[in-house]
Amino acid sequence: MELRTPYLIFLGDAPDQLAAKTAAGVAHWRREHCIGQLRLPGCCADLGLPELTIDEAAAQGARTVLVGIANRGGTIAESWEAPLARALDLGLDLAGGLHQRLAEVPRLAALAARNGRRISDVRHPDRDFPIATGQRRRGRRLLTVGTDCSVGKMYTALAIEDEMRRRGMNAAFRATGQTGIMIAGGGVSVDAVIADFIAGAAEFLTPESDDGHWDIVEGQGSLFHPSYAGVSLGLLHGAQPEAIVLCHEPTRPHMRGLPGRELPTLADCLEANLAAGRVTSPEIRCAGISINTAGLSTSVAESLLSQTADAFGLPCVDPVRSGVAAIVDRL
Amino acid sequence: MELRTPYLIFLGDAPDQLAAKTAAGVAHWRREHCIGQLRLPGCCADLGLPELTIDEAAAQGARTVLVGIANRGGTIAESWEAPLARALDLGLDLAGGLHQRLAEVPRLAALAARNGRRISDVRHPDRDFPIATGQRRRGRRLLTVGTDCSVGKMYTALAIEDEMRRRGMNAAFRATGQTGIMIAGGGVSVDAVIADFIAGAAEFLTPESDDGHWDIVEGQGSLFHPSYAGVSLGLLHGAQPEAIVLCHEPTRPHMRGLPGRELPTLADCLEANLAAGRVTSPEIRCAGISINTAGLSTSVAESLLSQTADAFGLPCVDPVRSGVAAIVDRL
Repeated sequence: MELRTPYLIFLGDAPDQLAAKTAAGVAHWRREHCIGQLRLPGCCADLGLPELTIDEAAAQGARTVLVGIANRGGTIAESWEAPLARALDLGLDLAGGLHQRLAEVPRLAALAARNGRRISDVRHPDRDFPIATGQRRRGRRLLTVGTDCSVGKMYTALAIEDEMRRRGMNAAFRATGQTGIMIAGGGVSVDAVIADFIAGAAEFLTPESDDGHWDIVEGQGSLFHPSYAGVSLGLLHGAQPEAIVLCHEPTRPHMRGLPGRELPTLADCLEANLAAGRVTSPEIRCAGISINTAGLSTSVAESLLSQTADAFGLPCVDPVRSGVAAIVDRL
Repeated sequence: MELRTPYLIFLGDAPDQLAAKTAAGVAHWRREHCIGQLRLPGCCADLGLPELTIDEAAAQGARTVLVGIANRGGTIAESWEAPLARALDLGLDLAGGLHQRLAEVPRLAALAARNGRRISDVRHPDRDFPIATGQRRRGRRLLTVGTDCSVGKMYTALAIEDEMRRRGMNAAFRATGQTGIMIAGGGVSVDAVIADFIAGAAEFLTPESDDGHWDIVEGQGSLFHPSYAGVSLGLLHGAQPEAIVLCHEPTRPHMRGLPGRELPTLADCLEANLAAGRVTSPEIRCAGISINTAGLSTSVAESLLSQTADAFGLPCVDPVRSGVAAIVDRL
């Protein structure tokens, strides 16, 4: 799945900024690919991009309209159809991150077929994957893993890619979720593949490369999340990372979506990931710990980071507060 | 997915006995549900069941034709269509374990719709599953786990169910693969569900019950198999077993399908399963070890079983040679 750049970001009638989280990720990490935003009446999200109509965006060279919002229930509103249809008529592709597929809206599907345009529904893999082999392959790979869902695995991976590129290293972010795929312009939604092919999809996403190249792979879920651990393990085996970065959110009262269920300790989570990772990557090691300290005061955050670094003998960063240079130094 | 009994076993033109492995499993474990077999010209498999035509089977009360054979490539031969179509016309259902779906053969699909009959393609789940919650639920559950694929996890689970029922215990085999589903007359092919729902499918398959009831759950793959470990982990979390039985095949030169890759040791495999299982079943324990010693002489097999039992302080059985009574004693 590959998206053509540059993008017009479609914000529809997003009720608030949170509903535009995916779009905001693209605007933050790939500002250079975003030529503008389109907001319908009632839209309360704003990415600070130039306001463009579909026709203006097409005239300025946009190649894809990114529908980067989460509607209630993940469905497509009727009011979106006319502008999205116009985009297809003007030769643009569509990409959507909703549960409901843009390609299943009859009018859009028909227009895309007639105009030879592509509709990418990034939550839904558009191809089959092989069964994983587990064979060692060349190239360097790092995977972000976590104590829970939504603890900063994507953000940390993107920050590491960014830092590496700034240093002139050859690095590519490899996306495994909808927001990541829109940011990267490609990838595989690994939690949406058939269970037998999770590791195979991860191998496909991070193919053999040369020893000067780093794939920075976005992790999913947690080995300790009872709903999603199978995805996390298949991704860990398939990505075959030589390095993992453990991500954590210290203020969370329970595992995401599961009141009463405690998060694992950093130590238990680290050990479980290293033990499982050895199945396909015998020399796997931890390159650092990434903690989202947004919910903590500066002094508490700083002491948590330094205490954790000391306890584990590893770089411990908050990608936002401190950057990830200490982790990249170690690689 | 539930299959109506009794069955006519369709052996088609199976080239040898191995191609009829699924059918043989049904005939072995559920002989009472099999009223006959149908063999086409060229068939070299034989289950020793009465030879019946479709019309004879229907007259004798058969409710489902089980297509329990593996064709080359998992496809449906043209010569099968006429007898299967006749079955639908006579009011029987069809159940198939092939990769190709019986329900995708236009003639069969049309006849099933016209006659109100069901076609069950057991490799392909026929419903959606919820996201797993990991919440503790009542009832007793045992899961067979393995050092590799195809080491006797289904056979061991069926033998334990059988032994429990003989003792008057309330036990139900829960099938997670195609052969198991045909034997049980229902179940979920967990490796074919969408990755996000592996554990949810396992929770669905083994719902809350009372403390007098045992679900004996068929395991899949291995935590150490680089192709399938995600399925194994999701199943372990979702099944929430209080007991596991570790299954092993001691003569295998490498992990199934992966020349050069060694099997894990029993100790490593046991420890990994217990550690991962604690996420949803904190008191999880191992109830015994099941070794397929078919490839060993009697004396070697006996000494392997007794040495393993001593080393782990656990019952160690071969379900075929020694039965599984020693494991059930412990539960």
